[in-house]
Amino acid sequence: MQSPVPALSRSLTALSRILTKAQDFETAKKLKPEVIPNLRLIADMLPFWRQITICCDHAKGATARLSGTANPVFDDTETTLAELQARIEKTLAFMASVPAEAFAGAETRQITIKTRGTDLILSGETYYSSYALPNFYFHMSTAYNILRGNGLEIGKTDFLGG
Amino acid sequence: MQSPVPALSRSLTALSRILTKAQDFETAKKLKPEVIPNLRLIADMLPFWRQITICCDHAKGATARLSGTANPVFDDTETTLAELQARIEKTLAFMASVPAEAFAGAETRQITIKTRGTDLILSGETYYSSYALPNFYFHMSTAYNILRGNGLEIGKTDFLGG
Repeated sequence: MQSPVPALSRSLTALSRILTKAQDFETAKKLKPEVIPNLRLIADMLPFWRQITICCDHAKGATARLSGTANPVFDDTETTLAELQARIEKTLAFMASVPAEAFAGAETRQITIKTRGTDLILSGETYYSSYALPNFYFHMSTAYNILRGNGLEIGKTDFLGG
Repeated sequence: MQSPVPALSRSLTALSRILTKAQDFETAKKLKPEVIPNLRLIADMLPFWRQITICCDHAKGATARLSGTANPVFDDTETTLAELQARIEKTLAFMASVPAEAFAGAETRQITIKTRGTDLILSGETYYSSYALPNFYFHMSTAYNILRGNGLEIGKTDFLGG
């Protein structure tokens, strides 16, 4: 299959630019550094900072699993927007280290997803299109929606990047 | 390229099941039929019903453009959850009508995106991975988040479907 790195990197870079706007907003509104990372759409959904780390992890996981590269473990310790920017940066750096050729034949590679119940075994193609990608964009969209719902002036162009 | 229809249909079917849960919620809470379709995350974002129609249109548009099939026009006239279900159904029916073979060579097909400024000309590959898919999942996620933020009990399993 085609390397998923260009498309995912483009979106993660767009997310990084959205975070920069959130940092400017934080400064302009004199918000404490823990405020934005802890925003949620509703009490029983994950906070902003976890939306970012999970989004990063789906990009990292897809890159590693589909290419047969070891999946680096990044601990979830971020508490500020600057630390979340660093999380995106190290995710992008890992993705950039995997050459496009490593994805040859990935569509039929067997991928195991650990779930609470029985493990799911999927082809690379199905794993990517029906698990990694929907999850990646779900968490990116939710991060965007948390900021947008709190008054940050961002639009679809910011989301699409480019 | 591989047909995008299986992955997009799986997600649209998941969205239809989420709409069914919204219909049950509407009944249980005795809501007027216009209430849920008009919910928004914030005043200057599009309402729920438009999130659904735009989501459907990106799936329809990707299917039509990448396969070189005429893109059917569906007017945006939905005002109830039942009508939104019908919109998803007719989108799925159109997508199912396009055979997988029609997507052969679609990665290099030239796709023109009309924007407010100059038109964008993209390869099929870039159009799908960096425009149609992010847009599709953005609007699906936003529809989900509107419902989730209003107390509908849905989770990631509903989003991923399958």
